Amino acid sequence: MSPRKSDSRERMVRSTVTLLREYGASATSIDRVLAHSGAPRGSVYHHFPRGRTQLIEEAVALAGDFVAGVIEAAAQADDPVEAIDRFFAVWRDRLVDNGFRAGCPVVAVAVETNDDAPQLTHTAGAVFADWQDALTALFRRHRLPEDRSRRLAALVVAAEEGAVIMCRAQQSIAPMEAVAAEIHELLVHALSNRPPTEPPPPGP
Amino acid sequence: MSPRKSDSRERMVRSTVTLLREYGASATSIDRVLAHSGAPRGSVYHHFPRGRTQLIEEAVALAGDFVAGVIEAAAQADDPVEAIDRFFAVWRDRLVDNGFRAGCPVVAVAVETNDDAPQLTHTAGAVFADWQDALTALFRRHRLPEDRSRRLAALVVAAEEGAVIMCRAQQSIAPMEAVAAEIHELLVHALSNRPPTEPPPPGP
Repeated sequence: MSPRKSDSRERMVRSTVTLLREYGASATSIDRVLAHSGAPRGSVYHHFPRGRTQLIEEAVALAGDFVAGVIEAAAQADDPVEAIDRFFAVWRDRLVDNGFRAGCPVVAVAVETNDDAPQLTHTAGAVFADWQDALTALFRRHRLPEDRSRRLAALVVAAEEGAVIMCRAQQSIAPMEAVAAEIHELLVHALSNRPPTEPPPPGP
Repeated sequence: MSPRKSDSRERMVRSTVTLLREYGASATSIDRVLAHSGAPRGSVYHHFPRGRTQLIEEAVALAGDFVAGVIEAAAQADDPVEAIDRFFAVWRDRLVDNGFRAGCPVVAVAVETNDDAPQLTHTAGAVFADWQDALTALFRRHRLPEDRSRRLAALVVAAEEGAVIMCRAQQSIAPMEAVAAEIHELLVHALSNRPPTEPPPPGP
């Protein structure tokens, strides 16, 4: 593939991400992706033989990998409370940077029933599952029990996605700040109740 | 207004709610609302002089009132932990009943930037704020501090909305169950740390 062709392919996927984030899945037509990316019409079925469905799948996967990278970077923190604080800080900064115009492209796909392309729903579900798995592994490394770790991971993803939507609707970062503070509190509490690594020392 | 006219008006708003929940805002066109409701085309601008924008505003307001009613009913529980358990149980039952096909119409509107009708974003934001206020009042009545109550209210709404989206994407109730369990735990912890109503009894 020539560099130019590969460049137009990548531009189209990135335009799809941007359009999903701002206008949702139904509004993300091939015409709009072409107009936004400036890619030539002839390139659509060359790069994406399955057309719009494939474009949206690849956009969701790209966004999924991006957030998985955010989780991985945040997980380098010394403790999971700081890691999750960093995770929410990234979302806060992104919302402020885009002036509350853009949300999550995975959510955009998940909130529309795709009768003609049900695989889009599965793709969105698989991305959420990847994030949940990465967060579960983070909590497990810090000795939280398996079932608790899975539940906390689901809450972090759900609360983050819900807060992004509320922040957009209210044009305010307050919901994200509130959610981050409460999950911080919950994690501190969960960690303080961990089973001890060593048998406790005998009492006096 | 004749009963028949008023009936077609109500059917159109209810159809708009259903279409928003299943297919999102962009896909909810006047044509689709007419096809779904069976209302006569001539009735659109008679009942809704501002057209599609007004229809969607009224659908979001109707859904907002419905959930406000759910919060009010749940708040009759003896304690806020049980109230929030009931709130999540309603969402769980609704998702199971609709086979994970339908989400929240307020979210559907909030995830799309409406350059030509920015008031739709404000309408969605105002509905979320109403729910947050009702939940804040619930926590305040049980003696949680004002700022904590506001934060918890934001978390409950965000986590519920995020979990609805994840459940749809994964065709599973597991994310909602996980979120409900963790918020239950957080509320128990928050209530156990309330300031005492009376000065504590003197020590021995």
